Amino acid sequence: MPPDPFMVLALDEARAAAARGEVPVGAVLVGPSGTVLARAGNRVEELSDPTAHAEILAIRAACAAAGAPRLPDSVLYVTLEPCAMCAQAIAHARVKRLVFGAWDPKGGGVDHGARVFEQTTTHHRPEIVGGIAAADCAALLEEFFRARR
Amino acid sequence: MPPDPFMVLALDEARAAAARGEVPVGAVLVGPSGTVLARAGNRVEELSDPTAHAEILAIRAACAAAGAPRLPDSVLYVTLEPCAMCAQAIAHARVKRLVFGAWDPKGGGVDHGARVFEQTTTHHRPEIVGGIAAADCAALLEEFFRARR
Repeated sequence: MPPDPFMVLALDEARAAAARGEVPVGAVLVGPSGTVLARAGNRVEELSDPTAHAEILAIRAACAAAGAPRLPDSVLYVTLEPCAMCAQAIAHARVKRLVFGAWDPKGGGVDHGARVFEQTTTHHRPEIVGGIAAADCAALLEEFFRARR
Repeated sequence: MPPDPFMVLALDEARAAAARGEVPVGAVLVGPSGTVLARAGNRVEELSDPTAHAEILAIRAACAAAGAPRLPDSVLYVTLEPCAMCAQAIAHARVKRLVFGAWDPKGGGVDHGARVFEQTTTHHRPEIVGGIAAADCAALLEEFFRARR
């Protein structure tokens, strides 16, 4: 199976984040016709912003461009299982479908930890596909943290 | 007992949010010496930003001013139990103490739903005090939603 082109873009964003000294996670938001609405990588250190995860930056950019705080027909590609902050932001933005790469047993909030979308109180649950290009996504993270230890 | 002065400021931010047509939630971040580092109210509609909750805006502003993505000695006052997005952002920012007003059984992520800080995977759990000026905080929200129905 050829690699998903949007996950390839997300991986590019993750690599660019690593080159900036950021945890290598990348995200791409895609509109209903397949248009890339926004793409981003982590910028927590650069911006001194603990919320500047790739997903949050992509959602904020796409919403600002759309002039609306919701993106009901969008698909979010991200190289790592989102944390609880990003998962809840995905719910707030009403993202239709979430496609992620590697699972994150320590920091993830979708299939681990807070399991945001599995709560009975959740007001939105996207379609969720995990494990896309997971080996490539995880390898980037492993390489990054290995080099820092 | 006199009202907590920082919660009074947070309530002022919540009222200002209501006047802008936003869900009335306000937040104040306080440094170790009692200095107000940032104060904010919801701006989701104004900014077309689903992440522009009062807590996120206050954390981002205080971190930007500090030039660091963490605020390890800060206290966050917020008029409503944070959602999972804001709770995880509070963990990312290493906020020392969280003081909130009204509980939010539907949207809260601290004592309800995702219960972000109760997960075994959480990397930070602030001291948490809920129910401060809860009646005033809840009354603002009830009034806002009653007027819109």
